Amino acid sequence: MDKLPSIPSEEPRLKRDFDQMVFINRNLTLENIRCYGFDMDYTMAMYKSPDYESMGFELLRDRMVSVGYPHDLLCYTYDPSFPTRGLVIDTKYGNLLKVDSNGNILVCSHSFTFLNGEDIQKYYPNKFIQRDDTDRFYILNTMFNLSETYLYTCLVDFFTRCSRYTNLEMGFQHGDLFMSYRSMFQDLRDAMDFIHDTGALKGCTVKNLEKYVIKDPNLPVLLTRLKVTAKVFLATNSDYSYTKAIMKYLLDSNVKESWRSYFDLIVVDTKKPLFFGEGTVLRQVDTNTGKLRIGTYTGDLQHGTVYSGGSSDLISDLLEVKGKDILYVGDHIFGDILKSKKRQGWKTFLVVPELNKELLIWDKKQSMFEELKRLDFFLAELYKHLDSGSHECPDIIAIQTRMKVLTDRMDMCYGQMGSLLRSGSRQTLFASQMLRYADLYSATCLNLLHYPFNYHFMAPPVLMPHESVLQQSTDFASTELIVTNNISR
Amino acid sequence: MDKLPSIPSEEPRLKRDFDQMVFINRNLTLENIRCYGFDMDYTMAMYKSPDYESMGFELLRDRMVSVGYPHDLLCYTYDPSFPTRGLVIDTKYGNLLKVDSNGNILVCSHSFTFLNGEDIQKYYPNKFIQRDDTDRFYILNTMFNLSETYLYTCLVDFFTRCSRYTNLEMGFQHGDLFMSYRSMFQDLRDAMDFIHDTGALKGCTVKNLEKYVIKDPNLPVLLTRLKVTAKVFLATNSDYSYTKAIMKYLLDSNVKESWRSYFDLIVVDTKKPLFFGEGTVLRQVDTNTGKLRIGTYTGDLQHGTVYSGGSSDLISDLLEVKGKDILYVGDHIFGDILKSKKRQGWKTFLVVPELNKELLIWDKKQSMFEELKRLDFFLAELYKHLDSGSHECPDIIAIQTRMKVLTDRMDMCYGQMGSLLRSGSRQTLFASQMLRYADLYSATCLNLLHYPFNYHFMAPPVLMPHESVLQQSTDFASTELIVTNNISR
Amino acid sequence: MDKLPSIPSEEPRLKRDFDQMVFINRNLTLENIRCYGFDMDYTMAMYKSPDYESMGFELLRDRMVSVGYPHDLLCYTYDPSFPTRGLVIDTKYGNLLKVDSNGNILVCSHSFTFLNGEDIQKYYPNKFIQRDDTDRFYILNTMFNLSETYLYTCLVDFFTRCSRYTNLEMGFQHGDLFMSYRSMFQDLRDAMDFIHDTGALKGCTVKNLEKYVIKDPNLPVLLTRLKVTAKVFLATNSDYSYTKAIMKYLLDSNVKESWRSYFDLIVVDTKKPLFFGEGTVLRQVDTNTGKLRIGTYTGDLQHGTVYSGGSSDLISDLLEVKGKDILYVGDHIFGDILKSKKRQGWKTFLVVPELNKELLIWDKKQSMFEELKRLDFFLAELYKHLDSGSHECPDIIAIQTRMKVLTDRMDMCYGQMGSLLRSGSRQTLFASQMLRYADLYSATCLNLLHYPFNYHFMAPPVLMPHESVLQQSTDFASTELIVTNNISR
Amino acid sequence: MDKLPSIPSEEPRLKRDFDQMVFINRNLTLENIRCYGFDMDYTMAMYKSPDYESMGFELLRDRMVSVGYPHDLLCYTYDPSFPTRGLVIDTKYGNLLKVDSNGNILVCSHSFTFLNGEDIQKYYPNKFIQRDDTDRFYILNTMFNLSETYLYTCLVDFFTRCSRYTNLEMGFQHGDLFMSYRSMFQDLRDAMDFIHDTGALKGCTVKNLEKYVIKDPNLPVLLTRLKVTAKVFLATNSDYSYTKAIMKYLLDSNVKESWRSYFDLIVVDTKKPLFFGEGTVLRQVDTNTGKLRIGTYTGDLQHGTVYSGGSSDLISDLLEVKGKDILYVGDHIFGDILKSKKRQGWKTFLVVPELNKELLIWDKKQSMFEELKRLDFFLAELYKHLDSGSHECPDIIAIQTRMKVLTDRMDMCYGQMGSLLRSGSRQTLFASQMLRYADLYSATCLNLLHYPFNYHFMAPPVLMPHESVLQQSTDFASTELIVTNNISR
Repeated sequence: MDKLPSIPSEEPRLKRDFDQMVFINRNLTLENIRCYGFDMDYTMAMYKSPDYESMGFELLRDRMVSVGYPHDLLCYTYDPSFPTRGLVIDTKYGNLLKVDSNGNILVCSHSFTFLNGEDIQKYYPNKFIQRDDTDRFYILNTMFNLSETYLYTCLVDFFTRCSRYTNLEMGFQHGDLFMSYRSMFQDLRDAMDFIHDTGALKGCTVKNLEKYVIKDPNLPVLLTRLKVTAKVFLATNSDYSYTKAIMKYLLDSNVKESWRSYFDLIVVDTKKPLFFGEGTVLRQVDTNTGKLRIGTYTGDLQHGTVYSGGSSDLISDLLEVKGKDILYVGDHIFGDILKSKKRQGWKTFLVVPELNKELLIWDKKQSMFEELKRLDFFLAELYKHLDSGSHECPDIIAIQTRMKVLTDRMDMCYGQMGSLLRSGSRQTLFASQMLRYADLYSATCLNLLHYPFNYHFMAPPVLMPHESVLQQSTDFASTELIVTNNISR
Repeated sequence: MDKLPSIPSEEPRLKRDFDQMVFINRNLTLENIRCYGFDMDYTMAMYKSPDYESMGFELLRDRMVSVGYPHDLLCYTYDPSFPTRGLVIDTKYGNLLKVDSNGNILVCSHSFTFLNGEDIQKYYPNKFIQRDDTDRFYILNTMFNLSETYLYTCLVDFFTRCSRYTNLEMGFQHGDLFMSYRSMFQDLRDAMDFIHDTGALKGCTVKNLEKYVIKDPNLPVLLTRLKVTAKVFLATNSDYSYTKAIMKYLLDSNVKESWRSYFDLIVVDTKKPLFFGEGTVLRQVDTNTGKLRIGTYTGDLQHGTVYSGGSSDLISDLLEVKGKDILYVGDHIFGDILKSKKRQGWKTFLVVPELNKELLIWDKKQSMFEELKRLDFFLAELYKHLDSGSHECPDIIAIQTRMKVLTDRMDMCYGQMGSLLRSGSRQTLFASQMLRYADLYSATCLNLLHYPFNYHFMAPPVLMPHESVLQQSTDFASTELIVTNNISR
Repeated sequence: MDKLPSIPSEEPRLKRDFDQMVFINRNLTLENIRCYGFDMDYTMAMYKSPDYESMGFELLRDRMVSVGYPHDLLCYTYDPSFPTRGLVIDTKYGNLLKVDSNGNILVCSHSFTFLNGEDIQKYYPNKFIQRDDTDRFYILNTMFNLSETYLYTCLVDFFTRCSRYTNLEMGFQHGDLFMSYRSMFQDLRDAMDFIHDTGALKGCTVKNLEKYVIKDPNLPVLLTRLKVTAKVFLATNSDYSYTKAIMKYLLDSNVKESWRSYFDLIVVDTKKPLFFGEGTVLRQVDTNTGKLRIGTYTGDLQHGTVYSGGSSDLISDLLEVKGKDILYVGDHIFGDILKSKKRQGWKTFLVVPELNKELLIWDKKQSMFEELKRLDFFLAELYKHLDSGSHECPDIIAIQTRMKVLTDRMDMCYGQMGSLLRSGSRQTLFASQMLRYADLYSATCLNLLHYPFNYHFMAPPVLMPHESVLQQSTDFASTELIVTNNISR
Repeated sequence: MDKLPSIPSEEPRLKRDFDQMVFINRNLTLENIRCYGFDMDYTMAMYKSPDYESMGFELLRDRMVSVGYPHDLLCYTYDPSFPTRGLVIDTKYGNLLKVDSNGNILVCSHSFTFLNGEDIQKYYPNKFIQRDDTDRFYILNTMFNLSETYLYTCLVDFFTRCSRYTNLEMGFQHGDLFMSYRSMFQDLRDAMDFIHDTGALKGCTVKNLEKYVIKDPNLPVLLTRLKVTAKVFLATNSDYSYTKAIMKYLLDSNVKESWRSYFDLIVVDTKKPLFFGEGTVLRQVDTNTGKLRIGTYTGDLQHGTVYSGGSSDLISDLLEVKGKDILYVGDHIFGDILKSKKRQGWKTFLVVPELNKELLIWDKKQSMFEELKRLDFFLAELYKHLDSGSHECPDIIAIQTRMKVLTDRMDMCYGQMGSLLRSGSRQTLFASQMLRYADLYSATCLNLLHYPFNYHFMAPPVLMPHESVLQQSTDFASTELIVTNNISR
């Protein structure tokens, strides 16, 4: 057997602070990565929260008013403490839902009111939705959806409280007019498309880059280091002129070095997720005029060339790398991560900007979670001596009440709609997709800086329930007293 | 706050042996279950392994010979140590694959040869398959598939070694004849349908019930107890005459009590998974003749009535229960569990007959897994003081070799294709679906006997990687020495 | 310009009798046809009507009784004067419909009752069906469907008149049982599959070949002549043993010459229409045992070889001919003709066994059609001097009544459900598909005998309504008197 | 029997000139029509040809140049004699195709070159295309497509002749750039969307209404008369502001009467063909601001109200009419006619602006068609005395050559790509769809003026080939001599 390396002499510990860590769902050896790909928005370009969301909210709100919604809406302003990413809009009943990976409802709100279990069951007798019914349910997965999530809530709030309108099951009536929750949602979507397509949002951003975009000197450092060991590309759904404005701001310094020189390949207008399937025609961008060249480029890859469109297959060919040798870094669970993983077998790195905040709260409130765990265990213990022949009925109402209180308290620490990733001891749909499709995840792509490029990301081994039974039996051997004390508080 | 129940005075412990336990993926309160549904095959009727699989294998093998395959095949007999459930056949290249939930290849065999990483990459450059390509990839998910899995391996083995045939990439050539892996698979599927549809398999089973079917006196006990607290139904894809033969054997005793009296409703010919969607016409079965009644029954539910066809919606209506109030117990991850969960929101209980064996091995070999975990951790430690600016390159070959040895050894403890649920520290596709779609799982449905009907199944809280970081840092604080010792062996 | 051939001196005329003619929808030069393909059933093998349909009806009826339908059904016997091919069953309301190519209803019957316009409108407010709704509407296009068409009518008749059953909108009620029109249709389809799949129908046929199959000495003559100028193949959905029985009977004579020698290629189990798309695996049939060879044949085409499965693409390759060089002769408007034309661009020849009868009636009753035409014209004339400013309202009730009478009379000459091809002056869906997809059509494929193999089938030029206006104006110049006389009858 | 109306005393004749006629595919009684619907563009608003197409062409051409196509393109101007409606672009090979209803190729051009049979076969071995492959084949069905058809031809022409570009099978190469026929087509489509969506085309039109739009005083007359007997609605894909501009111009006079008063209902933004299926949300348009009202109108129909979106079902409900009682008048064979007919069972009136020109030519050149018919017949006669046993081989080259010459000459009378409706004796895809889906058709909707509103449109009875055989035999009895004379020319 080979000789072993010397063991580091100090006590093992986590060198890195939590906010600098990359978290691991599946083993991944950076040494094998021959190519790094990046999305731009919310990946390389982090927007300043909540200023950016506020600006989006106002553009959206004003657009709604300008297409005919009441001027009263102008009183609403963005409240970052309300919306959470990953919520689901039920366009039939106008509710906001937080669900787990199977469609079980964890939280449900109507306007700013949170419904209790009984009320939820009136709408959803099984406390369950068929997520596949995409005609009815719309998932608000991206950071861009936050302002939309909040404005929809404001709309429902306004019409519910406005005396001119009668509240019906599927919308509001006012004289001869019927406004369905569905049509309000459609109007919102149209407004969203409007502020994106007309360039309104981008215009505001570009005019106030310092206000809206975080400029981190570590980004050029990361890209410079990456380029030594691997190929690097940028693949964004944004158009060339916006991409240029943002990337110049992020990367260009006094030294006469173009932002384009950081990349082997730049692809704009990618139309992800289409990009990971059939894709579109690949065109070259004339970097002087910003216009597309007609025809498609067929020569060898030239450094810093900008393309428009194409597909992940074309990009792999141009860069001469295979799917498993690419680590793609993005923020969109569906468009960036799920699709690149499922269709192309790419390695994936999900940027979750909320993660630092989530970790902070988790750290502070872990005692609550521990108590929740102990209550779980304690509850189980009460039934341990019973079997299907027993008729004994332990009194557990106090425990259950306490558990509900704890879950709600924990949720509220994250904001009104709770955490992005969990509700009490249950994981959200977003969390389950993150765990399934992202090999790595972190609050920012810059955290790659803290790992050597030959690093072995080793996933913490996950035990299945039947496997973990052995450990449990010892882990909790002496937890009784604590449990009792907590509950009797 | 309510007064608390008195705490059981003995030390908390796991009263139940592992093989009597029900494992929990998601919280479930039995008290809320108003209706229990059961599949029959491999759920209420457990077949004796490997006798039953051997019989299936022989019928299948003989059928292949009778449709023209060489008589030499008759030399093969079933070897229960080879196949594992949940494998994937690649009908293009004739390989058997074990994959994880994202389609990454964990194990690959061709005939009885296991391919190493390099060889796998020749077939699959990304070590990854697009599972959605169901035209090419076929998942062998049920216990019935075991004999098929093994016979396919035998076929590839025979033709590979037979000197009359030339081995080509996608099959075998013999004079003017080309036999593709695909057509061999198709012939096997046809043979499988033949032995099922002609009743050959059922005939053999019914003639030797004692030899092939486990009769457990606990089954009538369980059903009797369940009926006191809830409605109970049977929903099987089998036809009436086979269902009757099996259930009579399992439930009828000298006392003149019919097996049908154990159920509020019996549905045969269910055509799951179709049953959980649109379904088919619901007919009544004439229990005297075994024939279907024409027309559909529209009256109230009558105890012990037998129906054919229908759908889960019709059944819910007849039983007057909602989806979330039903616990459905079955063995088919797709047909029983995934579909009833995704489409109907039913609570689900997956029967995994292999579980006892898996747990036994897990228990015995846990030290290997612990060592694997320590090696993981140790590997990570070697890089802890480095970052993206470092050029140091720790020597890790010895560790990696040791990890590979451990993984292989662990796998081999389960059989030649390894465990149903994991390969080293990675979970299989089957495991990931079991975790996602089954609320509960156990080796047998009879284990429900060991829990009171007001039991609160509490899922062990699962930490996400970022959440578990805090704990890790302390858990492993003193593991160095052990690690060193093990590796230097 | 080239010198012209001498003109035949006799007066031009139609040499051939109507029943020997091939009719032409699109120009087709036999000289360019390099390959002739034939379906077997109702194409080369003409079944004796109504004996064959009666036998089918009885097998079907008896099967229905044996699955539980009342024994009273046994009183019904097949009446060839009722059903027409190409009808549509509305499985919702249990009606038989005759429709045109746009789904407009021409005739509608319920059991043996023909509905008048008013009653039709109760079921179909637009007198129109959405043919695409194949879940609801089933087209009875083949000769095999005739017995089914009639039996469905008998079923509706029986339950409607039986006092034990209550008539409801979508079926019949009897105590707790509801029998929907839909389920009756499903049972009928199942029974149909049963008598086909179990070989019941084929068994009866083979036992009484003389009774059920027309043996025409011209068939071997045609095939012999064709083989001199082109390749000839047989492609049938029937299996090998039935194909062999039928073709031996049709082609084998005392001379020791096998039926297989008439063909370059014989393909059984074709699974048309699938055959014209993706197809299935192509296997060779062992003509000694009738079993399939394993593996696929990859050598050159050998004369008289029998294959099973495959696809039209594979067959073209084996025969080395292109789609446009193949004339395919079949009787199934969808499976044979539409699909081979739309997917493969084959030339098509539709066998329409009813054609002789239709032509006979047409010939005899043409005066009715002429009168109908004159009434049409006459009606138009009444309005000729009016325009949108006119308020005059010609009295046309007498004309309309006469037209209805004529249409009904014409229809009844063909049978109770009227002609296969028209209802009064309107064409049926079947006719419109025949005109669109068949290049040629005839009562029997044997009529090819009457044309030289270098023949130019020239389609009669079809004028569009705007083009035919010029001619009309003169054609009818002197029809007044006749019109007047007829109407005043 | 009822007393008969007096017969008009004058000789029957066609009172109306051809260009004032409505042609009839299927019987239709105006008396039964309770509601008339109109499309706007090319239906009520006829654009002046070729000025309007020229303007479209120039906008399109200039857009192509502005996105990077060579300035040389600016030399091309619109030539109305080249394009015909209903052609198909093969985006793979850059060809323009004229096809019949089965996809058989009638004419094929590449840039301005017409390919002969042999060359066509190089591209299309079966002289046949699979029309269903809509990814590859694009049908240019509307008048708006004419400029596009011509510009695509110009593009292919330019690059083919430009020495900088190498001609390849699927496009052009220039250095590192490859321009596929497919991408050129895609650019053209994008440019087309651009000039429509940005309002460029509409802007130019509105600025020069007199130049581009035909104002006919008969339109208000027609609408006024219609409104007396039936409901009238307008359903256009155009937006409100353009609709208003056009309709004001067409209908408003000095008398203070709004264009809106002519309609019971006006629907803009209809998104046909979606309108005839699921449709979109129905909104009311604020006719003061032109903006949409939020919410949907639920009250009774108010005269002259303007809506946006909706669906044909909603419109039927609002107007309280059934599908069969609506006559819809439009110019778009797919969006207006096929869809309204197939999905809703509406009666349909197709406006075919080219019809007058087609009729004029038909009238003048009918002698050619007659000669073609005689040659057809004559050719058939040459083979009449032969059968499949004959080996005689009539010399027909002279006849065939003559037929080809005649067909080409006829085609050229209509323009370079020939007639919209036929090529020689064969009908185009457009013609076949017109015959199938339009109940009526005419050059302009104004021709309805020439018919009383109680008119019975009686379709000329169409004989099927087998039916017409009887007549043929006499019709051509004396045509020999003429035939001989013509051919010997």
